[in-house]
Amino acid sequence: MINFSIVLRVLGILLVFESAFMLLSSFVAMIYGEHDIVPLLISTGVTAVSGVILAVANRKALIEIGKREGYIIVSLVWVIFSIFGSIPFVLSGDIPSITNAFFETMSGFTTTGASILNDIEAMPHGLLFWRSMTQWLGGMGMILMSLAILPIFGIGGMQLFIAEVPGPTPDKLHPKVRETAKRLWGIYILFTLIQTILMLLGGMNFFDSVNHSFTTMATGGYSTYNDSLFSQSAYIQYVVTVFMFVAGTNFTLSYFALQRRFSKVLKNEEFRYYTGFVLVFTFIIAIVLFITHKGYSETNIFIKAEHIFRDALFQVVSLITTTGYATADYLTWGFFLISISFLIMFFGGSAGSTGGGIKIIRIMLLFKNSVLEFKRLLHPNAIIPVRLNQRAVQPQIITNVLAFIVFYMLIFIAGTITMSMLDIDFETSMGATIACLGNIGPGIGDVGPTNNFFALPDIGKWVLSFLMLMGRLELFTVLILFTRAFWKK
Amino acid sequence: MINFSIVLRVLGILLVFESAFMLLSSFVAMIYGEHDIVPLLISTGVTAVSGVILAVANRKALIEIGKREGYIIVSLVWVIFSIFGSIPFVLSGDIPSITNAFFETMSGFTTTGASILNDIEAMPHGLLFWRSMTQWLGGMGMILMSLAILPIFGIGGMQLFIAEVPGPTPDKLHPKVRETAKRLWGIYILFTLIQTILMLLGGMNFFDSVNHSFTTMATGGYSTYNDSLFSQSAYIQYVVTVFMFVAGTNFTLSYFALQRRFSKVLKNEEFRYYTGFVLVFTFIIAIVLFITHKGYSETNIFIKAEHIFRDALFQVVSLITTTGYATADYLTWGFFLISISFLIMFFGGSAGSTGGGIKIIRIMLLFKNSVLEFKRLLHPNAIIPVRLNQRAVQPQIITNVLAFIVFYMLIFIAGTITMSMLDIDFETSMGATIACLGNIGPGIGDVGPTNNFFALPDIGKWVLSFLMLMGRLELFTVLILFTRAFWKK
Repeated sequence: MINFSIVLRVLGILLVFESAFMLLSSFVAMIYGEHDIVPLLISTGVTAVSGVILAVANRKALIEIGKREGYIIVSLVWVIFSIFGSIPFVLSGDIPSITNAFFETMSGFTTTGASILNDIEAMPHGLLFWRSMTQWLGGMGMILMSLAILPIFGIGGMQLFIAEVPGPTPDKLHPKVRETAKRLWGIYILFTLIQTILMLLGGMNFFDSVNHSFTTMATGGYSTYNDSLFSQSAYIQYVVTVFMFVAGTNFTLSYFALQRRFSKVLKNEEFRYYTGFVLVFTFIIAIVLFITHKGYSETNIFIKAEHIFRDALFQVVSLITTTGYATADYLTWGFFLISISFLIMFFGGSAGSTGGGIKIIRIMLLFKNSVLEFKRLLHPNAIIPVRLNQRAVQPQIITNVLAFIVFYMLIFIAGTITMSMLDIDFETSMGATIACLGNIGPGIGDVGPTNNFFALPDIGKWVLSFLMLMGRLELFTVLILFTRAFWKK
Repeated sequence: MINFSIVLRVLGILLVFESAFMLLSSFVAMIYGEHDIVPLLISTGVTAVSGVILAVANRKALIEIGKREGYIIVSLVWVIFSIFGSIPFVLSGDIPSITNAFFETMSGFTTTGASILNDIEAMPHGLLFWRSMTQWLGGMGMILMSLAILPIFGIGGMQLFIAEVPGPTPDKLHPKVRETAKRLWGIYILFTLIQTILMLLGGMNFFDSVNHSFTTMATGGYSTYNDSLFSQSAYIQYVVTVFMFVAGTNFTLSYFALQRRFSKVLKNEEFRYYTGFVLVFTFIIAIVLFITHKGYSETNIFIKAEHIFRDALFQVVSLITTTGYATADYLTWGFFLISISFLIMFFGGSAGSTGGGIKIIRIMLLFKNSVLEFKRLLHPNAIIPVRLNQRAVQPQIITNVLAFIVFYMLIFIAGTITMSMLDIDFETSMGATIACLGNIGPGIGDVGPTNNFFALPDIGKWVLSFLMLMGRLELFTVLILFTRAFWKK
């Protein structure tokens, strides 16, 4: 029997937590004295009261949380946070459509960054802050999820991250989940602070600095500017690049780095692949842009080269980490680089980061296994295991990883077909699907980096919201709720 | 050490075999008395002499053929057949470009059906016959390959078809490969004959009937008409549909059917899925066409419904079996049905058929394994095997199947990116890649069913030819030749 009482109680407690951050946004609104003060305060009240009622009504629930309850809580918390989180947008009238408000909030909490706002700069500050906050909270949630909860579920090889499983496991950080979460959240907050300071030093105002730091560390990509980071200085763009890269790295590695145990970072295979992918893609794009592109008018060749390199690096890091900021429009880069950009969208950040997508570790295991398949063909009786950080990976985990990737592709295809049913062209259908499923933000077609999701039909926005949720929760967490086996007995 | 002597000897013998069929085409040319007589005779001579020289020069080679030699022979035979097979086209001046002639011939032998001919009907009959013959021979080759050779290689779960492997195996047909091949080739020839007769009864002339029967049974799709089968009668279209369906079925099942052991056919799971996919896709397309499409002007609703049903069924069967004939242009059917058509292109025929693509059995195992992944998440310690025809499939085979599918997607992506490097738009890049990799023929974008591959750049045609070869030989057969492990020691 599934214990719904504990599910509701946990959700209630988490809603109270959400309301606290809404209250903080209300304070921001008060500072600026704009029309969003009352809507934010009402929303805070509604959320807090709903949370308290849920928690108190189920106060007698057993504290034991089983695996099934875990799946339900994790899936529902993103949905419920998005429902309550969208109230201020609707109440204030800034996003009158419930569909749009829900889409924008789900896009926030899942750290996707796909927006329906045509004029971001016209929004009141309290709401913009809340919008960025949804991403920052979503990022926090993901750190907890990916280091503590997903490994227990054992989805698509994620058990690689839990110490109890035999086989390759990144070094245990600290035995207790609570302790781990605290430390990693500490790092997350610390990095957010450092980035804010560096952005301030670059001349960005305090409000925008905080907002962008929130959405960078969450690999979310919500900007407070209409043109994302197109008009920002080279300094700001480099700072954001560095922090996007860090946010796409396993936070455990950042922890080691802060302890100056750099060899642990450098020896980590996922980190090596991650860095390698970024460098290779940047190199390819920069070379092609340098040869073919007429958009760079600088006469000094070094200045032009730097600009091209910066644009290539920024876009690659932004897409591979699934952040989704833009400083250039890759859709103007010609068919080849559009294909490359589209490809990068399938990679995703490292496991244990705030990035979405398939994740570097899975792509890496896929590559390794593919190479070994040839050896297996030649030596059919030999047992040739995939190795990760020098240790053999259990075959079952490889099957999990492959099944995950195939599933990812299937959902991508299903999403594309569903979007095309709404009479959306093939390229936009694919672009919108991967942008949301991969928690990236911009896609290809009509939802590129200089465009947004406003024009899509309402049904499409609900479908895409669901894709964001699935992508964020490693597919199976959500999908398992729709299987008969889950509800049996 | 790889025994190159035996490789060359086998290739020599096979070339002589090829020349025999070229000679047959020369006779056809003689009957029509067109300008292709001499070119075909010269080509026959060149091919025969080359073959004899190769065979005689290596007559002392050991008859033992190892696995490595097998890989080389299988990959090379398609290439060498295409090189020699393209000579008549070039010599006659009907396809003056070597690139185009090679593309057309490789597209023939791999039973792809992608053409560069702008005016098929202007071709002399001998060459048209040879063009259809390349597909028919390619189909014959595939029957031998998929029942006798690929299972020994053990690629992507193909060992499911060999009796010696423990686990689920379709009933042994006859112990000896030679005997099996003979019987299945007998069926192949028998079906070609029956189809020819049925086409003649439908009023098609003898030449066109034979040619279309050749390319139907091979799931090749080369037509002797410029408009494929658009203008043919409903009767002809239905006959072709039935034989495409049969050609996409495991020939072992046809053997059972001819022995009236129908229960063996009906109980076969791959056949059930295959039939199910055809019905479901036909149903979806027919319904959508009936509701949305304005292209059907019939006033009588039953006549209109029949026409729509026939078009839907024909296109589905043509695409899923990777034949590639067309009686309607799915690119005019709206975004949703374009997506669906594109999706079907990834399926492919049954294993042991002449169809290409991923193959129904792999898609089926993928589906089954995906469903079980959820059960495995809920019961991590239970061993939950995939079942095929009531028997448990070894986990290693599932890994092989998943690895194959992922590899297929990777090559599809790599192909698309390579095509886009040639400044071909994204949709056409994807369409041309899957059309060739899946051995289908028409794709989406600028290479749809009412278009052809003529306009693509030469490099693109070589890349696509390589994709045809890889797709035809189950990827690994070709790719393994490019690994270091293969050539070691």
